Amino acid sequence: MVSTMQTSIMNVETKYFHLKHDLLLESGEKLSPVTLAYETYGTLNDEKSNAILVLHALTGDAHAAGYHHDEDSTGWWDLMIGPGKAFDTDKFFVICSNVIGGCKGSTGPSSVNPKTGQPYGLDFPIVSIKDMVNAQSHLIKGLGINKLVCVAGGSMGGMQVLQWVASYPEMLKSAIPIATAAKHSPQQIAFDEVGRQAIMADPNWSDGHYYLKSPPTRGLAVARMIGHITYMSDISMAEKFGRNVKPEKRKQKFSPDYEVEGYLQYRGDNFVKRFDANSYLYITKALDNFDLGNGGSLEKVFKQAPNVRFLVIAFKSDWLYPAYQSKEIVRACKQAHLDVSYYEINSTYGHDAFLLEAAEQEHFIGNFLKRFYDE
Amino acid sequence: MVSTMQTSIMNVETKYFHLKHDLLLESGEKLSPVTLAYETYGTLNDEKSNAILVLHALTGDAHAAGYHHDEDSTGWWDLMIGPGKAFDTDKFFVICSNVIGGCKGSTGPSSVNPKTGQPYGLDFPIVSIKDMVNAQSHLIKGLGINKLVCVAGGSMGGMQVLQWVASYPEMLKSAIPIATAAKHSPQQIAFDEVGRQAIMADPNWSDGHYYLKSPPTRGLAVARMIGHITYMSDISMAEKFGRNVKPEKRKQKFSPDYEVEGYLQYRGDNFVKRFDANSYLYITKALDNFDLGNGGSLEKVFKQAPNVRFLVIAFKSDWLYPAYQSKEIVRACKQAHLDVSYYEINSTYGHDAFLLEAAEQEHFIGNFLKRFYDE
Repeated sequence: MVSTMQTSIMNVETKYFHLKHDLLLESGEKLSPVTLAYETYGTLNDEKSNAILVLHALTGDAHAAGYHHDEDSTGWWDLMIGPGKAFDTDKFFVICSNVIGGCKGSTGPSSVNPKTGQPYGLDFPIVSIKDMVNAQSHLIKGLGINKLVCVAGGSMGGMQVLQWVASYPEMLKSAIPIATAAKHSPQQIAFDEVGRQAIMADPNWSDGHYYLKSPPTRGLAVARMIGHITYMSDISMAEKFGRNVKPEKRKQKFSPDYEVEGYLQYRGDNFVKRFDANSYLYITKALDNFDLGNGGSLEKVFKQAPNVRFLVIAFKSDWLYPAYQSKEIVRACKQAHLDVSYYEINSTYGHDAFLLEAAEQEHFIGNFLKRFYDE
Repeated sequence: MVSTMQTSIMNVETKYFHLKHDLLLESGEKLSPVTLAYETYGTLNDEKSNAILVLHALTGDAHAAGYHHDEDSTGWWDLMIGPGKAFDTDKFFVICSNVIGGCKGSTGPSSVNPKTGQPYGLDFPIVSIKDMVNAQSHLIKGLGINKLVCVAGGSMGGMQVLQWVASYPEMLKSAIPIATAAKHSPQQIAFDEVGRQAIMADPNWSDGHYYLKSPPTRGLAVARMIGHITYMSDISMAEKFGRNVKPEKRKQKFSPDYEVEGYLQYRGDNFVKRFDANSYLYITKALDNFDLGNGGSLEKVFKQAPNVRFLVIAFKSDWLYPAYQSKEIVRACKQAHLDVSYYEINSTYGHDAFLLEAAEQEHFIGNFLKRFYDE
């Protein structure tokens, strides 16, 4: 069920954190300068002990909750972050930062390469989920926080959660990976690859050097359309669209006839206004390359984090990140004797459920976080 | 299980059937001239009572079985058609024809428009599954056959099977729709639409008028890659590729790293050599527009075919044409008091199973057809 009673935070602002040093990447390359766009909600207590880091998915950004002063739409996880919500800003100080490689204020392929004075394009180095998390750790330390109550996120956000556990277990009390995986299956890689191919097939892509010209909007729109199909479920599409025909008069052969076609085209066309095609390439590649166990056992990774408590959430109709992938995480936690709870929420929304199923997530997450507030 | 012991028919030839009259299409337009490419296997008996029509899927053709004299690969359903196979050419005369709208010898958008002397392009009229079946009925009658033992096919072939039952029940003894649906769900429409968008996003597409120029190969390859993901299953991809990395040295950023990426690219690149992008648009649109019950009840359709006996087959891991769609067909057959058998084969191959799972299909189909041979 989607929660309808909402109070959202007003006048949220995006801030910018500049790393003091180069960021050494997994590839061996150094990235500099590095900026992270981030937002915070609620108040950091004097002990700096009430902070929660939430982590965004592929096309998300730092704007997780509330309203910017000049906008009338809320952040991407506003259903979950705010006063009295799952991540209760009356109790917790919630932080969200845009990933490196992105295009929403953090350093990415559309940023200016200091060596050339031009946007990086494909000269931007390959980044990994681990690199994203390393950059975030500087932000957290920069805010004077030594220990987070929790890291939480869905989809790619969940991968960052898992990487935080692997990289900085001493900085965490708990972790909430939602609708995610410790590594991509070949089917997940395949969907990402087709999206990348759609972008690179667009002649406007120009090997990534399109910033002073027309961007590859048609290719990027196709990539987004593929993504949207995988974010929904067969059932949710049937409920939302059925075989309803678009009311507009047909203008030409192969223009959208069905509502579902019009919806995909609308989502694709909107997406290209707010997202950079090269960022789509870099971030999907980071997703595909992510392998928390590094070809070995997850149990070993989690054994290095004996004090991190886990809440793992999956959704029944999510076929992009199927529940079996969450169960693999839970199994490894148990093998490593970690404190882990698992919920499989009976949603029809597919992968999008992590953004939409507020009521049940609020219940499970609220209860899970309670003990850290009472501690 | 894939059958390994095979005998294939040698020196198969594609023949051409020319309709004597215009073909009146569902849209109200007339198509003329109309040619159907077709092949036959086995021998038509003197009574012309042992004919089976098999119907191909989206990208199939008339070459269903055996070897052409100059080629070393067999037809698309060679596992199923031949001496001693599911469609036993020692007993039956098997016919397969390429659909109209296609590009493998039957009249389609790449055929010459008699009005202009140029390829039709988008001047080719919209065709439907019903139009394809109407064209086939002329071929069957042209071969002197009044009644078919069976019409059989998977995926879009299964839709044609269902349309044969609706349009020509008096010409059929039995029907075998495999891995198919009486209408596309919005998810199925969505996957087709993204493929179409990928083609139309390719500037070489030129509103369909590319026949004298470079065709939209990159867009068509992306469409095919999307298709291939939906034809396989999560499990079959995991079994086939896992997260194996391609052995070749990486040449540039975002070239395929993983075997699954290389496989998709290979399949995409090969496809564009043998298929016409406009045919892909027309045929996927025919798939999406197909609705056997025409918004109403399937039962009513099947009640018009009281003597047609059904064998319906679905595959457990087929998520593109999920088993529930086959069960809808079975339920309607039962409501109409038809003789119907249903098998859900426990395959991991996904939608491709109808092409690959020879042994079990051979068993069910062989047994099903036996009674018609003994009759």
